[in-house]
Amino acid sequence: MHIRVINPNTTAAMTEKIELSARAVVGPGTRLDAVNPAMGPASIESHYEEALSVPGILTEVAAGERAGVDGYVIACFGDPGLDAARELAVGPVVGIAEAAMHAAALLGRGFSVVTTLDRTRGRARELAARYVAGPACRGVYGCAIPVLELDHDPDVLDRVVAVGRAALERDDSDVLVLGCAGMADLCTRVSARLGVPVVDGVAAATVFVQSLVTLGLRTSPRTEYAAPPPKHHTGILAGFTRPDLAAWSAEPD
Amino acid sequence: MHIRVINPNTTAAMTEKIELSARAVVGPGTRLDAVNPAMGPASIESHYEEALSVPGILTEVAAGERAGVDGYVIACFGDPGLDAARELAVGPVVGIAEAAMHAAALLGRGFSVVTTLDRTRGRARELAARYVAGPACRGVYGCAIPVLELDHDPDVLDRVVAVGRAALERDDSDVLVLGCAGMADLCTRVSARLGVPVVDGVAAATVFVQSLVTLGLRTSPRTEYAAPPPKHHTGILAGFTRPDLAAWSAEPD
Amino acid sequence: MHIRVINPNTTAAMTEKIELSARAVVGPGTRLDAVNPAMGPASIESHYEEALSVPGILTEVAAGERAGVDGYVIACFGDPGLDAARELAVGPVVGIAEAAMHAAALLGRGFSVVTTLDRTRGRARELAARYVAGPACRGVYGCAIPVLELDHDPDVLDRVVAVGRAALERDDSDVLVLGCAGMADLCTRVSARLGVPVVDGVAAATVFVQSLVTLGLRTSPRTEYAAPPPKHHTGILAGFTRPDLAAWSAEPD
Amino acid sequence: MHIRVINPNTTAAMTEKIELSARAVVGPGTRLDAVNPAMGPASIESHYEEALSVPGILTEVAAGERAGVDGYVIACFGDPGLDAARELAVGPVVGIAEAAMHAAALLGRGFSVVTTLDRTRGRARELAARYVAGPACRGVYGCAIPVLELDHDPDVLDRVVAVGRAALERDDSDVLVLGCAGMADLCTRVSARLGVPVVDGVAAATVFVQSLVTLGLRTSPRTEYAAPPPKHHTGILAGFTRPDLAAWSAEPD
Amino acid sequence: MHIRVINPNTTAAMTEKIELSARAVVGPGTRLDAVNPAMGPASIESHYEEALSVPGILTEVAAGERAGVDGYVIACFGDPGLDAARELAVGPVVGIAEAAMHAAALLGRGFSVVTTLDRTRGRARELAARYVAGPACRGVYGCAIPVLELDHDPDVLDRVVAVGRAALERDDSDVLVLGCAGMADLCTRVSARLGVPVVDGVAAATVFVQSLVTLGLRTSPRTEYAAPPPKHHTGILAGFTRPDLAAWSAEPD
Amino acid sequence: MHIRVINPNTTAAMTEKIELSARAVVGPGTRLDAVNPAMGPASIESHYEEALSVPGILTEVAAGERAGVDGYVIACFGDPGLDAARELAVGPVVGIAEAAMHAAALLGRGFSVVTTLDRTRGRARELAARYVAGPACRGVYGCAIPVLELDHDPDVLDRVVAVGRAALERDDSDVLVLGCAGMADLCTRVSARLGVPVVDGVAAATVFVQSLVTLGLRTSPRTEYAAPPPKHHTGILAGFTRPDLAAWSAEPD
Repeated sequence: MHIRVINPNTTAAMTEKIELSARAVVGPGTRLDAVNPAMGPASIESHYEEALSVPGILTEVAAGERAGVDGYVIACFGDPGLDAARELAVGPVVGIAEAAMHAAALLGRGFSVVTTLDRTRGRARELAARYVAGPACRGVYGCAIPVLELDHDPDVLDRVVAVGRAALERDDSDVLVLGCAGMADLCTRVSARLGVPVVDGVAAATVFVQSLVTLGLRTSPRTEYAAPPPKHHTGILAGFTRPDLAAWSAEPD
Repeated sequence: MHIRVINPNTTAAMTEKIELSARAVVGPGTRLDAVNPAMGPASIESHYEEALSVPGILTEVAAGERAGVDGYVIACFGDPGLDAARELAVGPVVGIAEAAMHAAALLGRGFSVVTTLDRTRGRARELAARYVAGPACRGVYGCAIPVLELDHDPDVLDRVVAVGRAALERDDSDVLVLGCAGMADLCTRVSARLGVPVVDGVAAATVFVQSLVTLGLRTSPRTEYAAPPPKHHTGILAGFTRPDLAAWSAEPD
Repeated sequence: MHIRVINPNTTAAMTEKIELSARAVVGPGTRLDAVNPAMGPASIESHYEEALSVPGILTEVAAGERAGVDGYVIACFGDPGLDAARELAVGPVVGIAEAAMHAAALLGRGFSVVTTLDRTRGRARELAARYVAGPACRGVYGCAIPVLELDHDPDVLDRVVAVGRAALERDDSDVLVLGCAGMADLCTRVSARLGVPVVDGVAAATVFVQSLVTLGLRTSPRTEYAAPPPKHHTGILAGFTRPDLAAWSAEPD
Repeated sequence: MHIRVINPNTTAAMTEKIELSARAVVGPGTRLDAVNPAMGPASIESHYEEALSVPGILTEVAAGERAGVDGYVIACFGDPGLDAARELAVGPVVGIAEAAMHAAALLGRGFSVVTTLDRTRGRARELAARYVAGPACRGVYGCAIPVLELDHDPDVLDRVVAVGRAALERDDSDVLVLGCAGMADLCTRVSARLGVPVVDGVAAATVFVQSLVTLGLRTSPRTEYAAPPPKHHTGILAGFTRPDLAAWSAEPD
Repeated sequence: MHIRVINPNTTAAMTEKIELSARAVVGPGTRLDAVNPAMGPASIESHYEEALSVPGILTEVAAGERAGVDGYVIACFGDPGLDAARELAVGPVVGIAEAAMHAAALLGRGFSVVTTLDRTRGRARELAARYVAGPACRGVYGCAIPVLELDHDPDVLDRVVAVGRAALERDDSDVLVLGCAGMADLCTRVSARLGVPVVDGVAAATVFVQSLVTLGLRTSPRTEYAAPPPKHHTGILAGFTRPDLAAWSAEPD
Repeated sequence: MHIRVINPNTTAAMTEKIELSARAVVGPGTRLDAVNPAMGPASIESHYEEALSVPGILTEVAAGERAGVDGYVIACFGDPGLDAARELAVGPVVGIAEAAMHAAALLGRGFSVVTTLDRTRGRARELAARYVAGPACRGVYGCAIPVLELDHDPDVLDRVVAVGRAALERDDSDVLVLGCAGMADLCTRVSARLGVPVVDGVAAATVFVQSLVTLGLRTSPRTEYAAPPPKHHTGILAGFTRPDLAAWSAEPD
């Protein structure tokens, strides 16, 4: 089985960190790789950047299809391009917000999310409303740390623990969800400090994709997620005219 | 007041039709233009195409900001790029699904949507859940006509009327919403045939943007929709590094 | 186009203030007048008073129909008599809570409402649940000022700003809605102080009615809002027997 | 204990029928009377008529308070004036839609409502959304019989049974609710024909009011339903200036 | 009429207290008894204990059916075994959480629940979501007193009043619900101290069952709650093979 | 890793079938066993039987804890005893309805459930409301085959396919969920016939438990699911007094 984890931003160091988290949880028979697009934003902290990450994600999915990849993880907590990727891929595609929230729902009555910047909370709440039952997601909290600072700021762990503790208390939650792929490495330590399960979406999405492939399940091709037929695209996006070769011209040779 | 209607696809004939609908409803003091991006898909009937329409939309919004545009309409029923456009624009940005659904909610207890292809219904339902109260949107129905056929298929009016009539009956709805910018010209005739208000989102969004500008209201800059600071973008999307100049390098000189 | 703004209470000074707000936002081709019934309560701060304002509202709508009015605003934040008025009027009828909430939904992810007395919050919450999607209205707050004190209390602006600021913080809202027609004149100043869009329902409803009339849209006559046939009424309400002449006998000659 | 059932319309024959239903279910120690206002519509089948029934209802509640009534039933399925009546009365006030829906929720997983005219369904659905959990009310169906025909149309029972049977099937409901006070006398026969519990709101509201009074429970006076202080009313509604004497001048001597 | 109140735990002193509450509110023609099973937990403060209370409840219902009981109250705020009991009983079965929440909904816009231990709040919230409309139940609060301490802890009244007062304030609720059968005797005193209606589910369920029996209403036998046919049971539960004789062998002779 | 699948009924043949489904999907390093209790019903098709399956489930979980089991599957689509089992187990516990619904949500916009008898649909709908977002579960359909007939009735496959096809059409669903552990072996064939993903909860829950254990995640011990302290139990359930040894006396030596 071949699983590809797509880091939707272009920061290779973050792709490596994500790969570590994912690799730690796959089974022995699973081939895992992590990639990031050659186009798009260095990190994703706004709707603007999220939107601009999608062409690159689609390029990676199209390349994955040509390479026989069995399932994909989209490793950004906004789950960018998830619906479009499902149209391109034969196998399952799982976003990390989606995976983390479904996993959290299996571990307690309600969860809180700790994310990076306050401005990303609206998207997280929107995704929660789409994925899980109403009362499951009880709150989303920023900790005022930009994505690319997560590795450099020495206070990150303390900050996430502090925001998480306050969230558990205010929301009366059982479980904490980390709201950024860049927080994957904090998972165990935050859980140890807070005494509750803490879910990292990267690892959760990886095992869920592995699970779905094991079950022989893929995105339904019935109507909405059927493959889009070729359609003329122009300008710098002309390479996307054939979805099966999405943006081939934009890929490095 | 200067309102710009953005047709998110690259088909100029459709931009012209959209402009006619919009121009018919603005006040004498309003300057209105309709544009379409130089990049992206010829029409939007999948999540894939919707995602690939967004870079072009953002380019048009950034250009509009430089030109002092006061408010924008995004004229595709999937409301692509709406959140991202709100981050870029100082004035209000309204999607046509959003406008049509809010308008329909002012005219009756419940509405049904008639759209083009069945595969677009999932997105329409998702938007309804985001915009209006639970029981307002009672059903979404495809009529099996691709967007770019709307102008050429002689049966379009009859098909929309037939699907609409069945929808009103099945859903016990008061109001019909046309689920595609390309149906704007059918509005009056469908209403006359069915005896209920029929809402075209292009016209509705145009008067709503005009209304919001008149009221001096703009998207809240408080947190989520604050302008995104510059961030490094790479590859064919490098031109988006400075949001205020989004993709300038991709525009025709 | 002829728009009539109905102040549901009988206080003429408030009708004048409402008219100013509405007149400031209509287009050059729109004839606007503001009226208040000759019967009913001096102000509306309870369910009792709201119920007793409705016969007067219906009288004004019936008179408006005879005078060829194209659309109506009901200018009390409880949206009294909205459903009944829709049965009487051919053109659209919009309540100010309804308009303010739909407008706020176009400007941000969530809004808070600042109203007069705490006892009116239940009604405001009920209307929010009817008009907009679940997470849009995040809180309703009283500021302990009766309607008819709004013009006389020198602390009104400061009080509304203070309650509004606390609401934005507690609810993590983007937008503020003023929950009383009598607050219409505070709108710009509150917005300047708080740095977020502040929506006055009187102005919002006026431009929305103007928009709907421009679009040729009216309340659906399909089932629920069809005109009620004449029905025998007795006692002091005998004048309402013929809806088209609602309470004519009760009007001053 | 003294319970007053208020028939909100002015048709004495219907008041008598309602009284029979109510009287059949009260305990030996309960004094029950049924009244109808001297003002308002002969029957209620529109929002217009519902609104115009409220002043009369309030008059009856105010009179009841002066007479020491312990609790009230509002016997019209639109539950007109319920919030306002709660402000006036010290004891509990229960509407028949409210009572029927809560009772139905105790008897099965979901219920359907059979009402008179299709145009009243919107109000019934709105009340269901206010009273019971989302999935409880599964459908509302008209049977095309006006309220005042219920006693004269020989096909009423067959029609209600036919509409009810189809509703149970379509909605997969366990319980049927009769959506009009004028159907109270059909209850047992419809139940016998359909083999499911059939709830008449008049009887249900009567025993619920009796229950609440027995428990010593009354409407909360905390904020929203506190008694409204006197407020100046004008015109034909001048008699409502003092809520405790609501419309005394309008009552027959 | 014969009503049986089942205390689902095996503590006879609590059964006696429950019986007092119930007996105080039934009519003169009603025979009331209170029982507790001979099997199961001494008190119910966890999902584990709740589950283990159900076989005993079913034994009591089966015995009640053989004795001609007309209706049942299940007197534990988790409403254990409610669905299963409805399958066994011909007459109505009402849980005390269910009854208290429906009663509270008739008395104000929103209620808060005060219960014993924090760990029971999840179940209470789940029941609220099942029984009443979304905004009705505004909060559930523990007061850190185990069920069997309620009678011995001299601070119980003060603690419940303090938690209740804070709940009303925080939730802006009108009504308080006591979240444990063991609090039934506090009802009047808490209401006197807080000035709002306080609902005890034991009394509320008792009068509601009496009401339903008076109305001739019983659980719908249509599909879900039809009597389960005999099915082989093994082990210590072999006595449950015939539902109509549920656990007869386990009953004391 | 040691996973235990608990068949909540006492039919060993069904336990074997369930074990086959589960064993087919676990990784090489996972020890899997399937057990059924020595007490309780032969199959579960009513609330009564579901309730009576729980003591046996708890016995198996307690035994599993003593044996060092890492995670549990509860293999009945009503997810009986799930909350109580979570209190007893240190590792994760996943029900098959829960797993199937979360998995289905990863594969399409909406799913339909095909179950055995109509009477079990109420429980399935209740679980859907608890687990997934509102619009995800679009319908639940019975196919009139009792659980223990699934292996003997030659028409089962055709019946499930027919009911499933009608469900996809009526609900406009993308995915089908099999609503009974006894249908696990039909999964691949139904999917082949219908062309959509078909989810068997037994396999789904097994891989999800394996995933959660791999991630180091367990049920939150924060409040609601903390281990219940010992409590006196009487009668045939006396063996449950110590939760850690739940019903040891009832187990075969």
